[in-house]
Amino acid sequence: MQKYFVNPNNFYNNNQEIIIDKDDSFHIVKVMRMRIGDEVLVSDNQDSYLTRIKVLDEKGVILEVVEKQGLSTELNINITIAQGVVKKDKMEEVISKITALGAYRYIPVNMERCNIKIKEEKKDRQLKIIKEASEQSMRNKLMDLSNIISFKELLREKQNYDVCLFASTKVSTDNNNFKQALKNKANKSILVVVGPEGGISPKEEEMMEKEGFIPITLGPRILRTELAPVYIMSAISYEIELGE
Amino acid sequence: MQKYFVNPNNFYNNNQEIIIDKDDSFHIVKVMRMRIGDEVLVSDNQDSYLTRIKVLDEKGVILEVVEKQGLSTELNINITIAQGVVKKDKMEEVISKITALGAYRYIPVNMERCNIKIKEEKKDRQLKIIKEASEQSMRNKLMDLSNIISFKELLREKQNYDVCLFASTKVSTDNNNFKQALKNKANKSILVVVGPEGGISPKEEEMMEKEGFIPITLGPRILRTELAPVYIMSAISYEIELGE
Repeated sequence: MQKYFVNPNNFYNNNQEIIIDKDDSFHIVKVMRMRIGDEVLVSDNQDSYLTRIKVLDEKGVILEVVEKQGLSTELNINITIAQGVVKKDKMEEVISKITALGAYRYIPVNMERCNIKIKEEKKDRQLKIIKEASEQSMRNKLMDLSNIISFKELLREKQNYDVCLFASTKVSTDNNNFKQALKNKANKSILVVVGPEGGISPKEEEMMEKEGFIPITLGPRILRTELAPVYIMSAISYEIELGE
Repeated sequence: MQKYFVNPNNFYNNNQEIIIDKDDSFHIVKVMRMRIGDEVLVSDNQDSYLTRIKVLDEKGVILEVVEKQGLSTELNINITIAQGVVKKDKMEEVISKITALGAYRYIPVNMERCNIKIKEEKKDRQLKIIKEASEQSMRNKLMDLSNIISFKELLREKQNYDVCLFASTKVSTDNNNFKQALKNKANKSILVVVGPEGGISPKEEEMMEKEGFIPITLGPRILRTELAPVYIMSAISYEIELGE
């Protein structure tokens, strides 16, 4: 079934009806070619609702709410991925995939080995990617997208999380740190830092360790920076969401 | 350090020297701009060797072996991913990523909901992607790539594996089947089947279950077909290669 995210303000008539914005109305009428009475899932970025099409109008489809959905598709802990700024297309790829895998937040960070020009761009396109990946993967919430922050600001993020981890390539890294962090039920919010294409510099690793960030490994092979966040989110879903 | 895969026949002088083929020699000389005495990693698709450049020639670089590397970067179980045939660019993406994540073999399967024209193509390009991803991720072995097989042939693959799994979207699927299969140390070779873009059909699910394939879930969200194999390989690396 198709899913759409709508602004809570679009609910009216005692939350029994929903008006759909122009873009999604066009999608429902012209792309999906749906009919009156067809079922559609809707999320207000908190809960999901099963609805039925009441009025078909490509400028403003009207849905009536059938019922609130019981099943949550959200991870029960908040995972934030911070990553050294990567090229636009790679960042879009990472954003799309970790959204589908349930990430709570993505923070691009200006790091020493970001070998590209760092400039804040309009986030419209990335927010659209997040909305589409959330709809396709049936999430209840949209992933949060941060502006680019400095490495110093990243270090200060420590206070906002139960535990902060970073993907280290040092051979000396304890191979069990990642599982231990996930198996500790007290950790309800986790920040995981991944380097840019050039990797995290030794100086940055040292500064993070000093602040209490814990180094983790992602197995014995070398993963490209765009694959590391996907590995991390998949492993977290596997550990937390699948039964023993 | 840069890594290259070479044919075992390229070893000579009592396995003390290696001649590099033209493409990789060009890469060493013109792209990497390496010098005599620089170190290079080499794999013969079994073991890895630390070597040093002895002769720089863009048509045939000669390396001398310094030592055999002790550390293995291969998963200690064989994982084969079988997937309904997907579009060329998506298949290339999957091949590249699961190679980097340590997959043993990839089998494209002609399934009911493959909504594309199935034709066997030359594998040159895909083999090149596998070589590059293996070198970049520092693997010792190249992933094996199968020709496209039929669904009936897929069912017969059952006899070649300790356990066969398939990614099911049925809500009734036992949430713990995946972990149980991985935690069972007797399973040294595992086949995991993923649907094409349209998913596995109910009839196909039924036929696989009848043959003893076990349904697994990949969490509560819907994953696109190109993301599912990456989730599976990441989860397997996390389960098997990271310490408790």
